[in-house]
Amino acid sequence: MYTLHTFVRLHDTDAAGILFFANQFKLAHDAYESFMDASGNRFSKILNDGEVLYPIVHAEADYNAMLEAGDRLTIRLTPENIGKTSFTLSYKFVDAGENIVGTAQTVHVCVDRRSGEKKDLPEDIRLALNGIA
Amino acid sequence: MYTLHTFVRLHDTDAAGILFFANQFKLAHDAYESFMDASGNRFSKILNDGEVLYPIVHAEADYNAMLEAGDRLTIRLTPENIGKTSFTLSYKFVDAGENIVGTAQTVHVCVDRRSGEKKDLPEDIRLALNGIA
Amino acid sequence: MYTLHTFVRLHDTDAAGILFFANQFKLAHDAYESFMDASGNRFSKILNDGEVLYPIVHAEADYNAMLEAGDRLTIRLTPENIGKTSFTLSYKFVDAGENIVGTAQTVHVCVDRRSGEKKDLPEDIRLALNGIA
Amino acid sequence: MYTLHTFVRLHDTDAAGILFFANQFKLAHDAYESFMDASGNRFSKILNDGEVLYPIVHAEADYNAMLEAGDRLTIRLTPENIGKTSFTLSYKFVDAGENIVGTAQTVHVCVDRRSGEKKDLPEDIRLALNGIA
Repeated sequence: MYTLHTFVRLHDTDAAGILFFANQFKLAHDAYESFMDASGNRFSKILNDGEVLYPIVHAEADYNAMLEAGDRLTIRLTPENIGKTSFTLSYKFVDAGENIVGTAQTVHVCVDRRSGEKKDLPEDIRLALNGIA
Repeated sequence: MYTLHTFVRLHDTDAAGILFFANQFKLAHDAYESFMDASGNRFSKILNDGEVLYPIVHAEADYNAMLEAGDRLTIRLTPENIGKTSFTLSYKFVDAGENIVGTAQTVHVCVDRRSGEKKDLPEDIRLALNGIA
Repeated sequence: MYTLHTFVRLHDTDAAGILFFANQFKLAHDAYESFMDASGNRFSKILNDGEVLYPIVHAEADYNAMLEAGDRLTIRLTPENIGKTSFTLSYKFVDAGENIVGTAQTVHVCVDRRSGEKKDLPEDIRLALNGIA
Repeated sequence: MYTLHTFVRLHDTDAAGILFFANQFKLAHDAYESFMDASGNRFSKILNDGEVLYPIVHAEADYNAMLEAGDRLTIRLTPENIGKTSFTLSYKFVDAGENIVGTAQTVHVCVDRRSGEKKDLPEDIRLALNGIA
């Protein structure tokens, strides 16, 4: 498991007074980027120079609570499935009182940067994912 | 079916050069808001004065293509399920060549603004949803 | 003058119930992108293949009103200064009652995509800007 | 001075590969919210129950560098002017090499939540601002 501590910020909320649903995905991706950087697979390096990219082909989320600007959030990231050419990440959003206020999943496919064709997951990514599995 | 014509804008993309996945949900919600306004259920009025709100309890999306800044998008919104206290909206994202480049779903629950308790869908919302079913 | 008709969407607002200030800049940029596309200088083409880019080196905005989700907005874009290697765009945000609810300015510098060095504005951009001056 | 350590995230960037200009304002506001919370003036409490709000009436920013996803940023917040009914905040964005990569300013006016009329700054806000001046 990889853990990111963060906050709901005003720009994450909307006029209903709570976290705008799409921003829960945004926060999930923050945890993914933070994990990649922490594991030595620098996210910006992958973006700029990587032979493969990991675009998201499916995402889903559940919302259990109304989160407000200023709320502390802990995001717990676990790989749920590490395949040959893809991986699934699972996210739990936990509030200051240890309640699970939301969950999310993202499915990533490893593709060649130029051709867009599926490629095997590089060994360093596989290791990084296994390291928090 | 309700249809919204829109564009992918630069701020919807990220450094990978394509639509940031969470922003597909944002665009889906634009179509929902536009539909509500068009059906006579003014979105801002619901937000400000409505006795009930329709928070999203589940959302999911699939991504079939790499969308770029400037791409024209047509979003086709259909209610998939209209229950007693909830409804599910289905979105198809169609590009200029009539390809389905993505899909999404959002599940909304009708709740009392103050208590947060489930409430029956108001008749005008039910009518509006049935009108595009 | 180039004009874009748009709406304030829920995701543009925050828990204070009104347009989040940074999103007025986002909407301004929508007008800029729309203008570029309309003038034949396809924005995505510049991003992907352009020899020069037009990064923003200064931006400012004033806020005269509280804009809500669903509000119609007309954005009026005018070039304020067209220099040798830079240009300034001025934006007026006008509501349904023809009130100026906000203004913005962005200063763009023309730079070489690879070296980052200042370059003269290409003739097609200069023509496009002069066309709405 | 109040300091926030943060990162440029993928969703802060755009297809030009760098921080989208409007998101520098978003990051500035993160620092303001973090400062308010740290000073005991809980931001969400002001939003929900405050008699006065502090809407932004002017904002501006300069951009000195191309910031990428994953870049560490330190935001240094200082009040530049603390008036009777308004205050100006100044932000310096500093990268890992201590270069000032951007600056911003936001001008806030203290207004009555209901009437929207200008009000004197509450003493606790004045104290908090003076505390980092």
